Amino acid sequence: MGPGFPLAPGATIGVLGGGQLGRMLALAAARLGFDVVILTPELDAPASRVARETVIAPFDDPDGLARLADLCDVITYEFENVPAAAVERLKALGAPVAPSGLALAVAQDRVAEKTFLNEAGVRTVAFAQVDSGEDALEAAAQIGVPSLMKTRREGYDGKGQKWVEHAADAAAVFEALGGVPCILEAPADFVRELSVIAARGRVGELAIYPLGENHHEGGVLRRTVAPAPASPDLAAQAERIAAQILGRLDYVGVIGIELFELADGRLLANEIAPRVHNTGHWTQDGCEVCQFEQHIRAVAGWPLGPTQARAHVEMLNLLGDEAGAWARLAAEPETRLHLYGKREAKPGRKMGHINRLSAI
Amino acid sequence: MGPGFPLAPGATIGVLGGGQLGRMLALAAARLGFDVVILTPELDAPASRVARETVIAPFDDPDGLARLADLCDVITYEFENVPAAAVERLKALGAPVAPSGLALAVAQDRVAEKTFLNEAGVRTVAFAQVDSGEDALEAAAQIGVPSLMKTRREGYDGKGQKWVEHAADAAAVFEALGGVPCILEAPADFVRELSVIAARGRVGELAIYPLGENHHEGGVLRRTVAPAPASPDLAAQAERIAAQILGRLDYVGVIGIELFELADGRLLANEIAPRVHNTGHWTQDGCEVCQFEQHIRAVAGWPLGPTQARAHVEMLNLLGDEAGAWARLAAEPETRLHLYGKREAKPGRKMGHINRLSAI
Repeated sequence: MGPGFPLAPGATIGVLGGGQLGRMLALAAARLGFDVVILTPELDAPASRVARETVIAPFDDPDGLARLADLCDVITYEFENVPAAAVERLKALGAPVAPSGLALAVAQDRVAEKTFLNEAGVRTVAFAQVDSGEDALEAAAQIGVPSLMKTRREGYDGKGQKWVEHAADAAAVFEALGGVPCILEAPADFVRELSVIAARGRVGELAIYPLGENHHEGGVLRRTVAPAPASPDLAAQAERIAAQILGRLDYVGVIGIELFELADGRLLANEIAPRVHNTGHWTQDGCEVCQFEQHIRAVAGWPLGPTQARAHVEMLNLLGDEAGAWARLAAEPETRLHLYGKREAKPGRKMGHINRLSAI
Repeated sequence: MGPGFPLAPGATIGVLGGGQLGRMLALAAARLGFDVVILTPELDAPASRVARETVIAPFDDPDGLARLADLCDVITYEFENVPAAAVERLKALGAPVAPSGLALAVAQDRVAEKTFLNEAGVRTVAFAQVDSGEDALEAAAQIGVPSLMKTRREGYDGKGQKWVEHAADAAAVFEALGGVPCILEAPADFVRELSVIAARGRVGELAIYPLGENHHEGGVLRRTVAPAPASPDLAAQAERIAAQILGRLDYVGVIGIELFELADGRLLANEIAPRVHNTGHWTQDGCEVCQFEQHIRAVAGWPLGPTQARAHVEMLNLLGDEAGAWARLAAEPETRLHLYGKREAKPGRKMGHINRLSAI
């Protein structure tokens, strides 16, 4: 598993990013006796307030990265838009980074991602690469309409995407998205959006959580119900998809894989997030070892923990001023409250989440 | 419940003490969206590494206490030997402190403690106050031998106590304990050592966990099994004891109450700890809301959470180099590992604990 692994308690884990995912990773790491150092350009970041130390620097700042490499025994990240060059620099400095740069490269580019998935034997919707207005028209003719144009990079939570309703409009939609490299995707005729949260350890072992069923509003996750009702065949498909992706990426850590369930029962992969994932927050109260501890175990070279559900969970995101309902939510005996310590409740901002438990 | 309560998420909770209890309080507070500031004389304390900020100062340092009062919306403590003057000073500075100074005063003095318990209608072993060699001889005649002489203050984990085997030796034992104020206690003819972890909120509501059964070695807690097998009558006695103590102290927060079960089924109270307690660590994995979150809820003026057990737990302390077995323990699927981030594994030092789970 590489020299220095497994990391002994007392070792230091670096996290690129200071948001809520970094915060919950830091809390999990602390339970296992690890120290955490955060790198973020933000002052007073949610994760910084539960970490031993914070390096305040842009993600591509050579001095900041050198300082992080110097302080840490392993480095991970809480978001997939970490500059690839940052990971390369950390590796050049001798710092182990997990998950690997390959996972980041695949996840940062929607064309690379779907190409990778198909090559790994995982089905996706039909798609075409769009680098010009001409490409856009050609892609619309090939894929059909309506279809969804997305920037290849940096879209999230429904941003950076537009529908192509008429093939003739495809070039204009491409321009409206900024004329940057895009992908055109056939719509998925799905009956449910699901996700599978899975982990792979440093000796290649897998730990796969039960499926979550996800409900989005305006492109943002609103609700996950888990374990999702699923036939043994559906569960087996999801596990196979997770195993194929994790193995082919030689992955270390937790991954979130978004899936579409078609009417005929087949699963398509929609996208992968090489990190802990909002649709896995239910594991904090629904499983003995949550996705955050699982990720820390994996990157530290520890054995992975159990993944079976011990409760049925409805996870609800608290967006913007919804977190203001904390007093009412805290009074519900079946509700576990997780708040991120963000100072300002901007509309739509993820301020926290709740896990409502019921017997399995 | 006092102005300013309940505290909204984003408020700051101060903790006197930087050890493992402060660390686990800080982790629980962070989950609920609170910031934490630690006051400790120690550099690089376990709790400091998961807190927003640390005031490094002796517990009775006026500047340190003023700084803490300035930063925090409420202040609590992780150990009962906080100087009473420190709490008085914080209160004089306008900082709410919970639990109150009365609870500390009672817990810091074994004579005051047993006197308080008896006045609250809670039975204890027979005891006598010993301030001199003469007192010692008189107490031994009154209580009988063998009996246990303890310093009134600052003993813990079996330190500061000696047996009086022969009445004639009582004065010598008093001198051997340093000639400081002592208590002489009749031995408890108990069949089991139990403890009850309970909380009282700012509006007087109670939350009482199931009993734990405790096993000590050399005066140090080795193992807690919970919920302890208990008849309804035994459980009711424990709840009555907790309610009487908490009510009479007008207590806010979590308390640990050590109990002796006698052969006839009666419970005696042995001692109270006005803080989260080692014998309550099982609640971290055995209950939906653990003692640490419960304490934070109480001091913040939040509604208390549920206390029923969802699993059977065997809690084992990892003392000294026993924590070196982390790799083996991490591989046990039924075992949850909690490590404190202490740098040096001195013999007998509490380095972590595990909770081994089984179905209830």
